[in-house]
Amino acid sequence: MKNSNNRHRVTAYRASIFHVLHDPGMEKDEAATEYFEDGLLVVENGHVVKVGPAEALLTQLPTDVNTVDHTGKLIVPGFIDVHTHYPQVDIIAAYGEQLLQWLNKYTFPTEIKFTDEEYAQDVAEFFLDELLRNGTTTALVMATTHQSSVDVIFNASRQRNMRIIAGKVLMDRHAPNELLDTPETGFEHSQELIEKWHKQDRLSYAITPRFAPTSSDAQLEQVGWLAKEYPDAYVHTHVAENKKEIEWVAELFPWSRSYLDVYDHFGLLRERSVFAHCIHLNDDDHARMTQSGAAVAFCPTSNTFLGSGLFNLEHARAKNIRIGLATDVGGGTSFSMLQTLSDAYKVQQLAGSRLSPYRGFYLATLGGAEALYLEDRLGNFLPGKEADFIVLDYAATPLIQRRLQATTTIDENLFALMMLGDDRVVSATYIMGECSHTRN
Amino acid sequence: MKNSNNRHRVTAYRASIFHVLHDPGMEKDEAATEYFEDGLLVVENGHVVKVGPAEALLTQLPTDVNTVDHTGKLIVPGFIDVHTHYPQVDIIAAYGEQLLQWLNKYTFPTEIKFTDEEYAQDVAEFFLDELLRNGTTTALVMATTHQSSVDVIFNASRQRNMRIIAGKVLMDRHAPNELLDTPETGFEHSQELIEKWHKQDRLSYAITPRFAPTSSDAQLEQVGWLAKEYPDAYVHTHVAENKKEIEWVAELFPWSRSYLDVYDHFGLLRERSVFAHCIHLNDDDHARMTQSGAAVAFCPTSNTFLGSGLFNLEHARAKNIRIGLATDVGGGTSFSMLQTLSDAYKVQQLAGSRLSPYRGFYLATLGGAEALYLEDRLGNFLPGKEADFIVLDYAATPLIQRRLQATTTIDENLFALMMLGDDRVVSATYIMGECSHTRN
Repeated sequence: MKNSNNRHRVTAYRASIFHVLHDPGMEKDEAATEYFEDGLLVVENGHVVKVGPAEALLTQLPTDVNTVDHTGKLIVPGFIDVHTHYPQVDIIAAYGEQLLQWLNKYTFPTEIKFTDEEYAQDVAEFFLDELLRNGTTTALVMATTHQSSVDVIFNASRQRNMRIIAGKVLMDRHAPNELLDTPETGFEHSQELIEKWHKQDRLSYAITPRFAPTSSDAQLEQVGWLAKEYPDAYVHTHVAENKKEIEWVAELFPWSRSYLDVYDHFGLLRERSVFAHCIHLNDDDHARMTQSGAAVAFCPTSNTFLGSGLFNLEHARAKNIRIGLATDVGGGTSFSMLQTLSDAYKVQQLAGSRLSPYRGFYLATLGGAEALYLEDRLGNFLPGKEADFIVLDYAATPLIQRRLQATTTIDENLFALMMLGDDRVVSATYIMGECSHTRN
Repeated sequence: MKNSNNRHRVTAYRASIFHVLHDPGMEKDEAATEYFEDGLLVVENGHVVKVGPAEALLTQLPTDVNTVDHTGKLIVPGFIDVHTHYPQVDIIAAYGEQLLQWLNKYTFPTEIKFTDEEYAQDVAEFFLDELLRNGTTTALVMATTHQSSVDVIFNASRQRNMRIIAGKVLMDRHAPNELLDTPETGFEHSQELIEKWHKQDRLSYAITPRFAPTSSDAQLEQVGWLAKEYPDAYVHTHVAENKKEIEWVAELFPWSRSYLDVYDHFGLLRERSVFAHCIHLNDDDHARMTQSGAAVAFCPTSNTFLGSGLFNLEHARAKNIRIGLATDVGGGTSFSMLQTLSDAYKVQQLAGSRLSPYRGFYLATLGGAEALYLEDRLGNFLPGKEADFIVLDYAATPLIQRRLQATTTIDENLFALMMLGDDRVVSATYIMGECSHTRN
């Protein structure tokens, strides 16, 4: 972990500042957000001390306080990506398949390469640097079935002092032999990794059965034991993404009420459980998500790229289900949470709903923190939170620069950034008050 | 028009070169395309002389031939955008509405500003520069109802020597008074513009009724006369985009068999007629499109952004309808035809179909030329074609660079560029052999 002087003294960042206090809902709920046109974010020892209007706050600070001037730009909390696969970097944008064929044709072959630790490390470094380039400061990450794939991503995350949650994939059937564990080894290896990594520095462990079709009943039972034994570790899996997948699950688990019910049966619906996709859930499933405190990872670029379907955010949110936004690289097509918001908006439009810019930025920050039960540490700039934040450039491209000359309000600016933005918008990324990326 | 020495002598461009000879269909039809890993594109006086493998062709050329080396990059024909609105630059990414509300809330107010010629010129210059930045060398463009809005875009296009088709919007009802013409003035002003601009240099005129709801029967009758009087001018309008729009058309034209039938009734289905969207056509409509030789402009970023629906490309193409790809700025969300292809792929996946990279690049180049009846001049590198081409950078971003290290074939490269690319991929844009844009 870096340990420079900056982290141990007060630094004040001056810029326009926007953050979200609670879900703004469908429309422009001003009370749900705070915006300071000329704002100051005060950071000490890697944590937020306060945020507010610059002129007023500056009078309260010592005159020799270290000030970093980002005037003309916009500071927002770092983005939180609640579902992604670091081993899939090299198969992003792979042609022509829907989920089940895509797994067999592209995913499993690339994951087999992670027996090679050097390759794994190269991918992990690239992956984390792409997160930082795109303003993503926290992510929930699937590794591969190899224990070492988890060591690699955690070591690289620790070097960057990033709050990363990851876990070894559990998979004992319906995949190439090289990728299979057993109920016993899956359990043991996961347990060893939890003991080694969970809650070390900013790292947390996720118990990670890939999805129901690749785990036997016996393995899911073991996973249930882990989930019970380590209640503050995460559970991370996929559910109800693709219709053929759902039919297959119904064949494999004929006793189940629904796909989600398979996980429920083995005790995997609980707080800190994150289910990617949830496109095709029924009312009973929604009720169980709400009751259990489990969360949805909404993956719009992946759901469109793989032709999986349209997740209805409004419907799920009306049931008070926790929902975060996710890139789902490499089924997803972008590391950028801004581009992910653009597709999220389009998916909602096609589903006959809306995604306001306030709710969009909520999903990408505080909503993600809530999905991960990290809202006491991340997601906005309330005092005491960890100072992961990003600086957005209103002049990142000629089109964005021109478009923003025609806007008058912060919600218009946010909407233009989410529809037109990409990694170029992220001028700088700070991890606990340390600058970890600047756009060149 | 520029008139430098380059246009009057032979220049040979060395790079990887890809172009499409005919529609490759759903899958990888190698015979439909040509690819030269180490290729040479030979240009004389703004036209293609030949294309082929570099080593063989170089032996046939004079030793002192002017050679431009783009080795390591990929040359493809310039992109053709068959439906876009230059006046809507400043309302791209406007929040929260579907078609009819979006027109009233954002589009009409911004188009009223085009009474100010200085503003119009500023927008036109920006618009064309964005086309070049994104590798688009030809576009079919809606102006506003103001005659001067057409003068402005044609003057700016002529300065750049771009092959641009544009026209004055005809609209005599259901819009703000400031934007309305009458059946008579609409006819006269269009006719004057045709006489002034059509076939001047590389410019062509499009007779441009906005869409059926904003033209009375009397105006559509006048438009029909224009379409008949000027058979080599284009007709450019919208059809069957949004379900509420379709219901409205059925109310306004109770005698019509369908929305498309309104245009058919007034003689507007013919060669060189381009209909944007065509999402909700029935079998009879498809048959009339095929018979008449009219073309579809497929606008995926707009159709998703405005929640209009999913155009089924495979279905329409199976009927032999001409189809081009279009950004539809500002209902569309990007000037980039690569990003447009990304959304096109996703729309096809959601519609249960596929869009191969070969067909994708076909749509963005030769397919567009065919939709505009310009396949004798544009769309690929056959001898005699106008030398509008672009140079694509395989190392445009760290992600693209890394992803392309994992590919082995040109179709994989093309697919990665269409899913991950944006304006940064376009390293240079050439108009008739003149370099008109280089990425800095």
